[in-house]
Parts: sequence; structure tokens; C-alpha cells
Amino acid sequence: MKGAQYAGDGTIEIVELNATPPGREELQIAVAYCGLCGTDLHIIHGDMDARVITPLVFGHEMSGTVAAVGTGVTGWSVGDALTVMPLVWDGSCSACLAGHQHICQNLEFVGIDSPGALQQFWNVPASIGVKLPPELDLRTAALVEPTAVAVHDVRRSELQVGDRVVVLGGGPIGVLIASVARHAGARVMVAEVDEARRRRIAGLGFEVVDPSSTDIVEHVTTWTEGIGADVVFEVSGAAAAVRTLTALPKVRGTIVVVAIHNAHRDIDLQRVFWRELRLLGARVYQRADFDRAAELLLQGVIPVDELITGIVPLEETASAMADLGAGRAMKVLVDVAGIAS
Amino acid sequence: MKGAQYAGDGTIEIVELNATPPGREELQIAVAYCGLCGTDLHIIHGDMDARVITPLVFGHEMSGTVAAVGTGVTGWSVGDALTVMPLVWDGSCSACLAGHQHICQNLEFVGIDSPGALQQFWNVPASIGVKLPPELDLRTAALVEPTAVAVHDVRRSELQVGDRVVVLGGGPIGVLIASVARHAGARVMVAEVDEARRRRIAGLGFEVVDPSSTDIVEHVTTWTEGIGADVVFEVSGAAAAVRTLTALPKVRGTIVVVAIHNAHRDIDLQRVFWRELRLLGARVYQRADFDRAAELLLQGVIPVDELITGIVPLEETASAMADLGAGRAMKVLVDVAGIAS
Repeated sequence: MKGAQYAGDGTIEIVELNATPPGREELQIAVAYCGLCGTDLHIIHGDMDARVITPLVFGHEMSGTVAAVGTGVTGWSVGDALTVMPLVWDGSCSACLAGHQHICQNLEFVGIDSPGALQQFWNVPASIGVKLPPELDLRTAALVEPTAVAVHDVRRSELQVGDRVVVLGGGPIGVLIASVARHAGARVMVAEVDEARRRRIAGLGFEVVDPSSTDIVEHVTTWTEGIGADVVFEVSGAAAAVRTLTALPKVRGTIVVVAIHNAHRDIDLQRVFWRELRLLGARVYQRADFDRAAELLLQGVIPVDELITGIVPLEETASAMADLGAGRAMKVLVDVAGIAS
Repeated sequence: MKGAQYAGDGTIEIVELNATPPGREELQIAVAYCGLCGTDLHIIHGDMDARVITPLVFGHEMSGTVAAVGTGVTGWSVGDALTVMPLVWDGSCSACLAGHQHICQNLEFVGIDSPGALQQFWNVPASIGVKLPPELDLRTAALVEPTAVAVHDVRRSELQVGDRVVVLGGGPIGVLIASVARHAGARVMVAEVDEARRRRIAGLGFEVVDPSSTDIVEHVTTWTEGIGADVVFEVSGAAAAVRTLTALPKVRGTIVVVAIHNAHRDIDLQRVFWRELRLLGARVYQRADFDRAAELLLQGVIPVDELITGIVPLEETASAMADLGAGRAMKVLVDVAGIAS
């Protein structure tokens, strides 16, 4: 079988791998599609070299079907459609014991810390398989994982119907958050510096603003009739966004930090104090977020066709990653099974 | 009557003022004691010159008795013991209409935006008077306002019994927060750079740590058996404290920003994301906080004798402020009525 692996030094290799039968309590998955995401970019750019053991088959936004069922596995049959929630927790750390397994202090992220989905047959613990509704096509199902991120972020924000929401950053996760928030009854504005993305987002019916040419604080203040936003999602990862971040919410408003900020940021804590703001971190997802994500995709809430800007064969993984890194794509799926060919 | 006023340029004048009868819906208060606080220091240091109209009679941490009752006032009698919640809100801004009157967008803080308590007879709207239990002596009662700040901060944190709490900054508000948190069932560590303050705080039975000579992250991690603090109160206002702030709480732990940070701060948002932390601003107090504060003082929960490091006559207000600014005092009360003389 074929697979795509990160070989270190920014290189992706397409290699021939041996498919192995599933071990005890494992499923063997025939992978259909695997989306490429920002975390994959971090891996390829070498940002995670201290953590990753190369060569690494990466990829974790996937859909597929059960190809074989290992011994000791119950509740799964060959042919079942599924995705994977790529988190393996230790179950014994203080975070797990407090009920926050998804941010276990020794979390294994499958596709970073162990082999991922960019291979035609993939063995995973049966416990991390998430059964999909049979009506959900496998192309759409590859968006369950990133949609679960957005569902988690919106749930964490405690957003309420009618809220005015600002999403800073209009990449795939930003658009997914905007879509989930709108479905929850919010009015949503997306701030995005890239013009092509802004056009796409406006086409989905969202308010858009270019924070590089507009005074975003003034813009949001006007848009909210002087009150400020109920909820602000920081999805950009940009230092500039953080500098004005706390000026956007209303009194007692909420900021959700979704993006990875790999350096210390300049923040106005005075405003956090003055308006009694609430700033929340939101990371990955919990199991319920996966189930909700699948439902929302089935209901047509998520603009799947606008998000998936390309589907490429496994052999083109490297060039697709380059497009993603250059901001030329939103979500690109790798057709791991060769369905389209 | 005598009063102490800020005359601009860092100067405090003791002046002769005319007492006026209370206006409609006002109370005239015979001020007994008035505590000096950090906000008063900001006024005298000129930090608030853009906001303050000089000369300003300042002071807002007070106790006294009703000297005269204005027309239209009900529920008050001459001789009633009281303190004042020094907030006047407009009642019509979005924050007020959402139930957050204490952080009204056009809040008038009495003693900053209008004359304060450092005068022997003080007229205030009857609506901001807070009746005190007659058993509470007036010296102790001067601590109701700062205790209400601490009550507000602890309530905002949603601290739970058994929580491990770190208070960054061991000035009067830090010690009050530590005391209220301990009374709510928390185990409390106070981080304070000043040795004399640390000794005083240790004498109250709290854990103490010197963040200038100790690795506070390591110290808190060890103290919490590797888990991290449930709640961290940032009361220091120091840039250095913010740099390690997000490394202190446990997964899903809470940080409450109590201090004024008058410049942008360097913060590790990656950690906010990674541990799904919650950072909350907490400003002033709500009415219930005043009532709780008076109860706690009456119950002996607050270490009044350790907090009040001096009582001075009105004439010595300026030198008391200088001591406070130099960190030579905790809480100094001004004996406005001349009770001690």
C-alpha cells in the first residue's frame, strides 16, 4: 500500500508500506480521504521536530471504512463508515481524573505522536473510532474533525442566541467557527487579511472586515452599536490581532483563544480588568463535539463545497501542502484510496 | 470643617471647607475613618490628572454615621452607622441594562470623579449608603470597602472548597483576597517580594513565597503536587508576574486579573490554549459584596489588626500617603473625625 510520510528537513515522501492486520482491540481502516491542516504544516515546517519521530505518516482529518476488525473489538463491522478522534489519553493524570481527558497532560495525538491517516490501510485503537451516519458521504465526512474543533470552540464560548460574534482569521477553522456560531443564532463578522478569502467568506453571507486596512476596534464598535462583541474568537495566531483583541468585546464579553501563539504576545490586561472580560483557551475537542459535528455536516450547516478547494491524489500531497502554506487553498483533501482516479 | 484635598502636582492640602446641608435624596455623613489605598496613590502621583478635577477631596474607604437626612430620603436616621459604595452608574448604558451596573460604561467613582470622604461632613446620594451592623466598630468598618473588593474577586473566581489558590502580590488587597479565599475553604499561597510583608503574611498562617528569589512556577508546581493551582489572583500589577502567570494554573484553572496594568503586558497565550485556562477580569464590587464584607469583618475572618498598620490624624494624610507609596505601610486609616485625639 501507499503512504505519505514526513521524512524530516521539510520533505514529504510517497512510499510503499506494508499493511499489517489489526492488533488486539484495533480496527484496520481503509482510509478514503484525509484533509491537510495547519498542524500538518507545522510538522512539515519542522516546528515539531523535537516531538516527532521520523519518518512519520502524518494526517488526522480523515474518513474511511472498517477493513478488518481486531480480536477483542465489539460494536464494529467490516464496511462501517467512520472517522477517528485522534486523541489517546493516559486516563490517570490530574486532567483526566478531573474529566478533561481531551487535554490529558500526557496526550498522544495520533498523526503527530504515532502514525496518521495518510496511508491506505491504517490501524488504530477501536476506542478512538467514531461511527458515522451512513448517509454522510466520505468526502464530507473528512470535515468532521475540523468541524469538531469549531463545535468545541463555540460550546466553550457559551455563545447565546442573538450574540454578535467576531472571528479573527478566516481560514478553514475560522469559517467553520463562523458557520457553527451562525447556526447557533449568532450574527457573525469575520476579520481576514486575504482578499480572496474575504470574497469567499462574504459569499457565504458573513460580514467581513480587513483588519490590515480598517480600524477593527472602531469597525466592531460601530457594528455592535457601541456595545462591543459578545464573543470574539482569536483564530489568526497573529501578534497584531492580540494587540487590539481585548478592545473588541462588550462589558463581561468573552474571548476564546483558538489559535496557536508560539511566542509571548502583547496584551492589554487593563481592558480585561476594566470590562471584566473573560478569556478562555479552547483546544481540540471532546467526544460529543465529534457527534455534533457529524450532525451539522449532515444537516448542511457547514459550507462543505466552499471549504474544500481541492482534492488531490496521494502523490500530490507535497504540492498540496505547499499551496496550503502559501495561502492558495482553504481545505485540500487527499484522496488516499484513489477514489477519484 | 477640615478636609484633605489633592491640589495637583503631587500635593495634598489640609483645608478649611464649608459643611453644607444634605440636598434632596442625600445623606450628610459625619465621617469617622477613611482608609488610604492604591487608587489614592495614583491620584496623588498624577496618573489620573486627565480625569480628576482639582482641587479634589479624595478618599473612599470610609466609615461614619448619618449626621443629617435630606428631603425625600427614607430608611435612614441620624446616628445610623454606614459606609458608602462609591459607585454612581447611569442605569441606561448597555452594561447597566445587562445587569452589570458596577462596571457601567459611564461610571462615576465617588472620591475620584466627585468629592470623597476625607472631609468631616460628606454629602452623598442616599442610594449609595450601605447600612452597617451596629456591632461593627467604625475602625473595622473602614475596611468594608477593600474587603468588598476581595469578596468580589473571590466570588468572580468561582473558587471551590479545597482549592489551591495562589495570590500574586501581598499588599492589603492580596491579604484580603487570601483571607476571604481561606475562609471559603481554600489553601492559599501568597507571592510577595517585600520581606517585611512576607513575614507578616506568614504570621497570618499563609504559605508565602518570594517570586524575586524563587522559581515561582516550580514552587507552585511542587506545592500543588504537579497539578497546578486551581485559582491564581494577579494582584501585583507587575510585568514580571504576567510573564509566568499562565504557567501557574492547572488544566482548566482560573486566573483573576485584579491589578491595574497600565501598559501592555507580555503573556504566554499558548499556555492559555494548551491548558484551556480561563482568565477573568474583576473590577470593584457589587452591592452583595459589601454586605458579605461587613459580615466577614463581623465574624473576625479578616485580620483587621494586622492590616491596619497605622491611624493618623487628617493633618498627617500627606506623610501617610508617602509611607504607603514607599511600601512602609499596609493599610493606614485617617482619623477624620479626630476620634483618637
